[in-house]
Amino acid sequence: MTINRHVQISVAAHSGDYSKEDEERARVFVREAAKCNPILILGGYWGLMKVVVDEAYGLGLKVVLMLPMEKESVDPPPGVISIRTGMEYRARSVPLARSGDVLVALGGEVGTMIEVLMAYAMGKPVVVLTGSNFSTDGLAASFPNGFDRRRTAPVNYVDDPIKAAQLACSGAGARLAGDWGGEDV
Amino acid sequence: MTINRHVQISVAAHSGDYSKEDEERARVFVREAAKCNPILILGGYWGLMKVVVDEAYGLGLKVVLMLPMEKESVDPPPGVISIRTGMEYRARSVPLARSGDVLVALGGEVGTMIEVLMAYAMGKPVVVLTGSNFSTDGLAASFPNGFDRRRTAPVNYVDDPIKAAQLACSGAGARLAGDWGGEDV
Amino acid sequence: MTINRHVQISVAAHSGDYSKEDEERARVFVREAAKCNPILILGGYWGLMKVVVDEAYGLGLKVVLMLPMEKESVDPPPGVISIRTGMEYRARSVPLARSGDVLVALGGEVGTMIEVLMAYAMGKPVVVLTGSNFSTDGLAASFPNGFDRRRTAPVNYVDDPIKAAQLACSGAGARLAGDWGGEDV
Amino acid sequence: MTINRHVQISVAAHSGDYSKEDEERARVFVREAAKCNPILILGGYWGLMKVVVDEAYGLGLKVVLMLPMEKESVDPPPGVISIRTGMEYRARSVPLARSGDVLVALGGEVGTMIEVLMAYAMGKPVVVLTGSNFSTDGLAASFPNGFDRRRTAPVNYVDDPIKAAQLACSGAGARLAGDWGGEDV
Repeated sequence: MTINRHVQISVAAHSGDYSKEDEERARVFVREAAKCNPILILGGYWGLMKVVVDEAYGLGLKVVLMLPMEKESVDPPPGVISIRTGMEYRARSVPLARSGDVLVALGGEVGTMIEVLMAYAMGKPVVVLTGSNFSTDGLAASFPNGFDRRRTAPVNYVDDPIKAAQLACSGAGARLAGDWGGEDV
Repeated sequence: MTINRHVQISVAAHSGDYSKEDEERARVFVREAAKCNPILILGGYWGLMKVVVDEAYGLGLKVVLMLPMEKESVDPPPGVISIRTGMEYRARSVPLARSGDVLVALGGEVGTMIEVLMAYAMGKPVVVLTGSNFSTDGLAASFPNGFDRRRTAPVNYVDDPIKAAQLACSGAGARLAGDWGGEDV
Repeated sequence: MTINRHVQISVAAHSGDYSKEDEERARVFVREAAKCNPILILGGYWGLMKVVVDEAYGLGLKVVLMLPMEKESVDPPPGVISIRTGMEYRARSVPLARSGDVLVALGGEVGTMIEVLMAYAMGKPVVVLTGSNFSTDGLAASFPNGFDRRRTAPVNYVDDPIKAAQLACSGAGARLAGDWGGEDV
Repeated sequence: MTINRHVQISVAAHSGDYSKEDEERARVFVREAAKCNPILILGGYWGLMKVVVDEAYGLGLKVVLMLPMEKESVDPPPGVISIRTGMEYRARSVPLARSGDVLVALGGEVGTMIEVLMAYAMGKPVVVLTGSNFSTDGLAASFPNGFDRRRTAPVNYVDDPIKAAQLACSGAGARLAGDWGGEDV
């Protein structure tokens, strides 16, 4: 990584309703992450993802959306890049997870969990923000040290969104070394 | 489902080494499933997946492989259909999970777990064979009733491969009603 | 190719209306191709593709459908395998073109033309049946020797469906040697 | 389109060697297109695509690369966004073509031609720069009014890169109205 390179952070977050506290923690995460001027990659412009996009837009960050085919016609703020993947929800999560130097989960249900596991399977560092009101909170108890016995990537559970952002910003060193994302796991 | 329709069973299984017991249980599963003359869909021809393919081939079952781009040049038995997906491991798991009327996990690590969660997220019935020597065994303890709070699909944990096959054969009634696989979860 | 291996033939054909003559030629193609007991891979169960599927089903051939997300809920004859790709039309054409040892175009519009060019770009032998009432007829005049200056794969124009089938059956020798489909062209 | 919305221009261009004249025309295109402050979407950072990316980077434009799995580890200038699609060449062209409000072909071989036909099939306006030294020049003679008899999208052939850029910048009005990209063509 050269000094000028921007970290690409994949952000996994819930697609539906969220609490005031979840919203505030998502905003805190973005404001802290903005300090390393990252590129944020998200899977849509609805639910808790929309909070992240709007906060990032306000801060002038580069944001890319990997839109599933079911919802390609959303209308994000100007300058936010919309990639119309032509693929269903789970398929669009693949380039989302694969394009980040690190993946951060801000809380969500099974779709978010799948993105966490995908990133791990690809050898990407993962940061899971706990203390949310979502099912992802349960990952820390079930998989404290990684999602299988291979430990293909570091998994960090933190309940502080500032710490999550700092970990994400420092995660750029773990980029894939080559064209491949590892073995079939 | 008409009387003649073949159940399409997606089979998720480990890509690497396995025990003698895991192998035997996989073969028992296939022999029992053969009674409903299903179409089996797998993600490759290596590891425990190869055991399933070879057993199914010996019984004359229709088998389709969703091959990841990293390993498209495998050479399965004649008549086994090779779909070269042109996609990496996790991406090829999407049509694998999506094409089954039901998904059965015979034991595996994070790649198998992802396929289980994908099928669930798509609203497909899932059968997880426990008592293997793989990380999927842990799912029963962590997620006894489903993988998130939405319960989008039934999840069955069984430690008997005959029972797993019977559940799979009966699972065809749960096909997707339309072109969509549900909401962003 | 071993003696027992089945040729996988990707069949590109029109998605909409067709003439009686186009239908008859499609059926003649399938009947002749059946002599090498191929696996047929098609992109749907509508339009001229449906004619091919029904004829192949009647002859007991193995048939796989690469269904686009827009039309995953079609109901083909029993035993015909439905792969629900979770991808839009053009994306589902990639595994269609990639999975064949050869691609045969029985006549179609731009979607069929794209599949022809994809197969060529992947280094697959292509057979285009001319004398149809479709835009693919124009390819012979525009690109008599290949679709660009690189000649990455042989392109055969024939107006006889029997000859098209014989070429397809003999085309299995040209399989990809490895996991890759060549260069970015 | 609101007044502030940035046009997303998909740029298809050759992956290999190019002439000095092709390079200069590509640069002229980018400099003129920069006047509408577009987001540029390209399929890689090699060949003539690299010229476009470097010129756009110098002008401060937002650039997104849809990288094929075979070449995901390229190292573009800082701030250029790399989407690692996890898909082979032709598959990665789908989100490339689908994400643009318009697609411009600056000259290329069959890969570029496929992207042109894909965009047309998706109902996107297409601009083909002629007078290059590439096979795309032949499209104007073969398909002067569109690539099939359906005329699903406007096709513009121009030999002036300034005019090509102006057309691209004005093409944003033709966005997809909904989540779908039209019929199976």
